[in-house]
Amino acid sequence: MRSIRVGLIGWGTVGCGVIQVLRENEADIRNRLGVPLELRRVADLDIDRPRPVSVPRDLLTNRIDDILNDPDIDIVVELIGGLDAAREVIRRAIDSGKHVVTANKALLAHSGNELFRVAAERGRAIGFEASVAGGIPLIKALREGLAGNRIQTIFGILNGTANYILTRMAEGGLSFEDALGEAQQMGYAEANPALDVEGIDTAHKLAIASALSFGTPIRFDEVYTEGISHIDPDDIQFGEEFGYSLKLLAIARHMDGRIETRVHPTLIPRHHVLASVKGAYNAVHVQGNAVGNIMLYGMGAGMMPTGSAVVGDLIDLARDILGSTPGRVPALAFQPDRLAEIAIKPIADVSTCYYFRFSALDQPGVLSKVSGILGKFHISIAAVIQKGRRKASSVPIVMLTHEALESNVRAALAEIDQLDIVTAPTQIIRIENQETNNFF
Amino acid sequence: MRSIRVGLIGWGTVGCGVIQVLRENEADIRNRLGVPLELRRVADLDIDRPRPVSVPRDLLTNRIDDILNDPDIDIVVELIGGLDAAREVIRRAIDSGKHVVTANKALLAHSGNELFRVAAERGRAIGFEASVAGGIPLIKALREGLAGNRIQTIFGILNGTANYILTRMAEGGLSFEDALGEAQQMGYAEANPALDVEGIDTAHKLAIASALSFGTPIRFDEVYTEGISHIDPDDIQFGEEFGYSLKLLAIARHMDGRIETRVHPTLIPRHHVLASVKGAYNAVHVQGNAVGNIMLYGMGAGMMPTGSAVVGDLIDLARDILGSTPGRVPALAFQPDRLAEIAIKPIADVSTCYYFRFSALDQPGVLSKVSGILGKFHISIAAVIQKGRRKASSVPIVMLTHEALESNVRAALAEIDQLDIVTAPTQIIRIENQETNNFF
Repeated sequence: MRSIRVGLIGWGTVGCGVIQVLRENEADIRNRLGVPLELRRVADLDIDRPRPVSVPRDLLTNRIDDILNDPDIDIVVELIGGLDAAREVIRRAIDSGKHVVTANKALLAHSGNELFRVAAERGRAIGFEASVAGGIPLIKALREGLAGNRIQTIFGILNGTANYILTRMAEGGLSFEDALGEAQQMGYAEANPALDVEGIDTAHKLAIASALSFGTPIRFDEVYTEGISHIDPDDIQFGEEFGYSLKLLAIARHMDGRIETRVHPTLIPRHHVLASVKGAYNAVHVQGNAVGNIMLYGMGAGMMPTGSAVVGDLIDLARDILGSTPGRVPALAFQPDRLAEIAIKPIADVSTCYYFRFSALDQPGVLSKVSGILGKFHISIAAVIQKGRRKASSVPIVMLTHEALESNVRAALAEIDQLDIVTAPTQIIRIENQETNNFF
Repeated sequence: MRSIRVGLIGWGTVGCGVIQVLRENEADIRNRLGVPLELRRVADLDIDRPRPVSVPRDLLTNRIDDILNDPDIDIVVELIGGLDAAREVIRRAIDSGKHVVTANKALLAHSGNELFRVAAERGRAIGFEASVAGGIPLIKALREGLAGNRIQTIFGILNGTANYILTRMAEGGLSFEDALGEAQQMGYAEANPALDVEGIDTAHKLAIASALSFGTPIRFDEVYTEGISHIDPDDIQFGEEFGYSLKLLAIARHMDGRIETRVHPTLIPRHHVLASVKGAYNAVHVQGNAVGNIMLYGMGAGMMPTGSAVVGDLIDLARDILGSTPGRVPALAFQPDRLAEIAIKPIADVSTCYYFRFSALDQPGVLSKVSGILGKFHISIAAVIQKGRRKASSVPIVMLTHEALESNVRAALAEIDQLDIVTAPTQIIRIENQETNNFF
């Protein structure tokens, strides 16, 4: 009985998780797969730093070539992160006839189309379940379990750090800065948290999930992306008064021949299941024309959950190696020659409901002027809260609109923010609810 | 380019769903799979009855043999339901060299071990994603996506009818009988609703999911099963006062070398995500030693969601036919020769928290007598509500316990129910919370 041999490049947190899962569940994995999944080699530039999971000395190397040139290794696990070096590792692994598993969403968002094409040409496969939603087997669900569906919509909470920060702002009343500081202390956020809090990491993942769902190449550059750093705890509080929870949502929708892909803070009805996703959890709501609404929920990051996803891919690839069917399921769910360049709807063309928080002088006639401009741009008001004075001279006026066109909203707010009585740029948060779709 | 040809036996609701999905998503399916999935023949005893989805006359037959003996048909979809006839169809299909897809959980709960063994011997595969949790790709998640895990626990809401009834009892204050009547009117419950409301259908599904999770044969007879027909709206109300929601839960747990499999009404914390699963939705919470907590949520029944699951299986099997790798993933997740007869823990040995509703005379000393007996059996009280008189002579006393052993609970209640002051058998509902596991 042969074994399937794995070389792991990048012995960081996720690498430790993969090693731990392979070790702890060795017997179960063999009983499922029928043959052992053997960790043959671990490469890292620094093999001396202490880690939570140890590796026998003779498995360790600081030379990537010891893995890439080892003819006995079937699958290379790329966990070094970053773009250029990781891309190089994967390309070289495929050139050496190896299959690849990666958790690198940034790389796939940027270079996935190229890497998948090269892999398919060489009859090799790239597993990337760990790249989106961590331990949640979302990619398998989109590519296989839901393969009978035309996927219509995805709503996802795909970044645990941002979700943790918003949860703490909502439940603890913390400012964004304090909640971020706490997330950093807990080890959730990196020292440079921009990828997480500016929505970029979420956009990487959405670009991948959207391609898999709609049968298009990956188009990260066309994802509209807005983060949470401008969110004030007041906005969360006001949202709750209207019955909404605030989440950093990834939204992809295929409708009327165009695709929307956008990442932004979003108010969703408080009683919707996605609203109950707290802290570092991720959740993805998928709507298919056969299955209706599906939600998958779980840990979106972390050593062991991500390790679970990587090892799931290893087992899948091992089956394909044993059956000589690599590429059994196409990387982007659809046959490469059937991927279509479906038009992306620019954000200006998106219609949704809106939350506005105006900062205005506490004077008579303010509401009339603001609502007059909104009316001029066909923006219809659904609800208003005007609270007593917060600051010396200005008050917040909070409005919820019915469905409106983003380009109209932008034009109206540009005009409103020019008014003498308006003291600060208007805060704008998009809303997903019953009016904009049948999901919420 | 060859096509993969499908024969469908049983043109009922799910059959219509399968036909509709194949038709509506024909282009997408071909673009995913690379070849067409062709519906070659539809067999039903009654081909004249009007259905929501029509079939061209020349595809219809009332002779099963027209499918089983057609050498061009690759996959037989068994949707006739029931036990003996369905078992015969599947055995004959396999004997004729065909692969099978079925949604028949009752059959698999009873005869799955035999059918999977026969199929494996003949190099044929049986897809059964539709048999558990309808449109939710749970079986794929347990067998493949989470294959790197040792699965520890499953908590599932697996019967939409029972969940609909409990939801209506909770939200509308309806009695069990009225809620059941409403479910029947809505078309959710069958005229004979015993399979749904007595927990048997849920137990069928749990027996399958438990086998897949823990690497054992299917053992339906050993699932402890209790339905919801004895639940009073008062119990739901009292549960809510303590912060709990009532669900018909399927629970499977592998711990200390033994397996628990049980289906019964269960109080779970109101803020847990499973508590927000309403109406005809299903949800399954899985705990794995690597992934941690995962939840999958979606429609557990219905024409299109179940059609989605069947077609997902068809696509999967088609890939295995094209790649000559049928049985690529073993039917019960583990290699047949690695399935283990892990001991099942009898319900008497289960430890959990409990809700009791005593019906007692409104007299001094009642609480003392009842709690005295509980104490004697090492059952420790966590909370009590005693309400004013409801009936002429008896009052409900509601108690929540800390973790206790079921055999002790049964012995204590046998003694309590013998007391003169107790006017009716005590209502007992099990609780899952933070004390009994780290899920809730």
